[in-house]
Amino acid sequence: MLDALREILGPNAVLSGDDTVKWRSDWTDSYHCTPLAVVRPKTTHDVSAVVQWANGTGTPIVPVGGNTGLSGGTFADGAVMISLDRLNQIEEVRPQSRVAIVGAGVILSNLHEAVDAHDLVFPLTFGAKGSAMIGGILSTNAGGSNVVRYGNTRDLCLGIEAVLPTGEIINLMSELHKDNSGLNLKHLLIGAEGTLGLITRAVLKLHPKPRAFATAMLAAKDLDAGLDVLNALQQATGGAVEAFEYMPRAYIDAHRAMFPAAPAPFADSYDVNILAEVGALAPRDARMMQDGSTPVVTHLEDTLAGFIENGLILDAVVAQNEGQRRAMWERREQAAEVVLTQGPVIQNDVALPLDRLQEFLTKASQVLATIDPEAHDISVAHVGDGNIHYTVSPSDTDPAHKDKIVEAIEKLVQDMRGSFSAEHGIGLSKRNSMKRRKDPIALNTMKAIKEALDPNGILNPGKVYPD
Amino acid sequence: MLDALREILGPNAVLSGDDTVKWRSDWTDSYHCTPLAVVRPKTTHDVSAVVQWANGTGTPIVPVGGNTGLSGGTFADGAVMISLDRLNQIEEVRPQSRVAIVGAGVILSNLHEAVDAHDLVFPLTFGAKGSAMIGGILSTNAGGSNVVRYGNTRDLCLGIEAVLPTGEIINLMSELHKDNSGLNLKHLLIGAEGTLGLITRAVLKLHPKPRAFATAMLAAKDLDAGLDVLNALQQATGGAVEAFEYMPRAYIDAHRAMFPAAPAPFADSYDVNILAEVGALAPRDARMMQDGSTPVVTHLEDTLAGFIENGLILDAVVAQNEGQRRAMWERREQAAEVVLTQGPVIQNDVALPLDRLQEFLTKASQVLATIDPEAHDISVAHVGDGNIHYTVSPSDTDPAHKDKIVEAIEKLVQDMRGSFSAEHGIGLSKRNSMKRRKDPIALNTMKAIKEALDPNGILNPGKVYPD
Repeated sequence: MLDALREILGPNAVLSGDDTVKWRSDWTDSYHCTPLAVVRPKTTHDVSAVVQWANGTGTPIVPVGGNTGLSGGTFADGAVMISLDRLNQIEEVRPQSRVAIVGAGVILSNLHEAVDAHDLVFPLTFGAKGSAMIGGILSTNAGGSNVVRYGNTRDLCLGIEAVLPTGEIINLMSELHKDNSGLNLKHLLIGAEGTLGLITRAVLKLHPKPRAFATAMLAAKDLDAGLDVLNALQQATGGAVEAFEYMPRAYIDAHRAMFPAAPAPFADSYDVNILAEVGALAPRDARMMQDGSTPVVTHLEDTLAGFIENGLILDAVVAQNEGQRRAMWERREQAAEVVLTQGPVIQNDVALPLDRLQEFLTKASQVLATIDPEAHDISVAHVGDGNIHYTVSPSDTDPAHKDKIVEAIEKLVQDMRGSFSAEHGIGLSKRNSMKRRKDPIALNTMKAIKEALDPNGILNPGKVYPD
Repeated sequence: MLDALREILGPNAVLSGDDTVKWRSDWTDSYHCTPLAVVRPKTTHDVSAVVQWANGTGTPIVPVGGNTGLSGGTFADGAVMISLDRLNQIEEVRPQSRVAIVGAGVILSNLHEAVDAHDLVFPLTFGAKGSAMIGGILSTNAGGSNVVRYGNTRDLCLGIEAVLPTGEIINLMSELHKDNSGLNLKHLLIGAEGTLGLITRAVLKLHPKPRAFATAMLAAKDLDAGLDVLNALQQATGGAVEAFEYMPRAYIDAHRAMFPAAPAPFADSYDVNILAEVGALAPRDARMMQDGSTPVVTHLEDTLAGFIENGLILDAVVAQNEGQRRAMWERREQAAEVVLTQGPVIQNDVALPLDRLQEFLTKASQVLATIDPEAHDISVAHVGDGNIHYTVSPSDTDPAHKDKIVEAIEKLVQDMRGSFSAEHGIGLSKRNSMKRRKDPIALNTMKAIKEALDPNGILNPGKVYPD
């Protein structure tokens, strides 16, 4: 097998034995595997040749980019891993039509830097941006904090190229904003977690870079009020809200216990703390400071003062300089570390209708109290897109007990028209939830498509679809 | 057959003979057909029962909404037509989370009115809005003039319910902004022109209603300059451009010949005339007139004066009242009538990369001159989304001659990374173009999906996929 792969790709592109250590575990350290080999093709045609060989020999293929996924999507026991990291060309950045054409192996933060030079942004961002690659980002339809303004990854992608399970190369490299020519295969491949095709190139949408950011901490009565605040802030700024992130009192307390030097968000303490960021695009909405320091968004302080006056918010603190802004973001971005201090936890990446977030939190506490009165939750949420990272510290880490909690929370989510998987995808970790919670007709339809396009089950087997 | 359908739906929901006249031709009067029957179910379950019967008996089904399509997608010779017009409930409008839940038979302009009461908009709009229904709009992924700001129909839809070719009901009625739970079947069904499923209900995204509109006619040197103007206007307004519509000198002249009472767009005449509309969302961008008349967008006149000063545009006229605004829009919206005055025409609904529109127009003229020196074009375009309605008056209406022109234009479009079908879809009329121009691997993949989900070829046979 190694000889066959070396014949196709050349000797340096085929790794085996100890050379594959880096790919044997994932970022969460939850999944450990032993791939047959790791191959690193340099071109789409090389990817195609490997997949054609795999389809002919019945060898499972698992694609990998930056390996920053959270759901075990790159687990590769008994499979050949294809790393797309060498397809790392930023081929074109076209400022006038605001598109970038890139290879699947481009690292997100490298793309950020490349387009910044043109006063543009590729607005998708999240913690793993220094490692995550465009191919994996598209295959998982990554989300993050800016979805409220710019949408998910699929909303930022105009076209893709991919290698199908047969090894054929499908060319959907459209740069177009209107293209009604048959079934939309781009959207089918995006978010398919590498089970229908390996994305090798993409045409991405760029946006103008905001002239200034204003960042504030807001305190609200509850999350129903929080949504009213978001809508009012959108009205006041003309839809310029870039992020609107919820942190409960328990999270603020745990954060301060872990980082005693970090500033308190407010002089008082509140149940509902929100980090809000506004990005000003129009010249009259942004003012450069006289001393050349950070530009500011005009009007925001007046707007927030008005919100306090009419009772919409309880408190507000606007960052006065980049240091204060960074401190606000660090408090939110340290969530993964803060959650670890809670001991073993159950992480639920759920989404709810925007107007039912508070109802969910209230009902989830009740559900939890009946199953495990000593358990508590410490959850952060992207309020603008309805995504709650509902994290539970159970009193007992017995798998059956944990499953019972997961199942009860997922049932509540389903009853409230929510989703058990918001942005992290299915991979290995949520196949049971797929079986329990996904519309059975939808599930059968997905399987029929998988079987039609990958009859030999070559691409990323054992993921996404339940048995 | 009629008895079986009457048994399923009741006698009043099954039309035959002369009662089906209304459905025998399409809006363009290009396609005439004789359906076996027209059925008008009132519920999703009734739609399901009819499709289950059709799948069992091998009877072709053609769905129809407002019947305003331009590509022959509802041609129904030898088929039972299912009209979704009685699924016309606006079930919920939820202003706080900005969603509407509607049946497939809701007429677009009725939805516009229902959400206007909440100071919200469903921003999709086009000429046929008084007849077009949500189900057809979704099945064709309709476009229109506001795509530059709000995207196509698929970008405005969070979830759908549909009846599959087996009669099974698939529930994808998500209201969620993040939902990564397997393959995205919603995007597969949207734009599939009723070949994979009949969309019966939808969750639609609403947007805040702009506080004021400013509408202007702008003259530019060419369409490359036009795109620079669009980008500059987006920068100046913080991305508030709602429409950016191109009309060439030939169109302005033909319009004035047909409507002598209509005002001229400018005192002088220009090659490149653009209707630009800005919708102001933030309070400081909109000013109510003292006398209570139309609110205006502040800053726009200063911005345009600046554009003239630095040579970005040649001329600008801002509508000073609603009457002047209407006149500007009527000039653009009368395109269908104006084009008819040119005699028999060839309509090409093509899309190009935004930065190649001028290059396309120049090269297309050269292509046309070599095939038919006496032909001329009279084309309007949505500059913000790259969609050109490239309309040719040939000197000879022989079908072979017309085909030669279509083929040459489509080849040029393809060579320039464009699409032969921007917003009108494939239906019957563009199946040849699909065969010639679509990536063959993509075409085979589409056919494999169609066969997997509709092995008996029940839904809208003979459309979209070439033989």
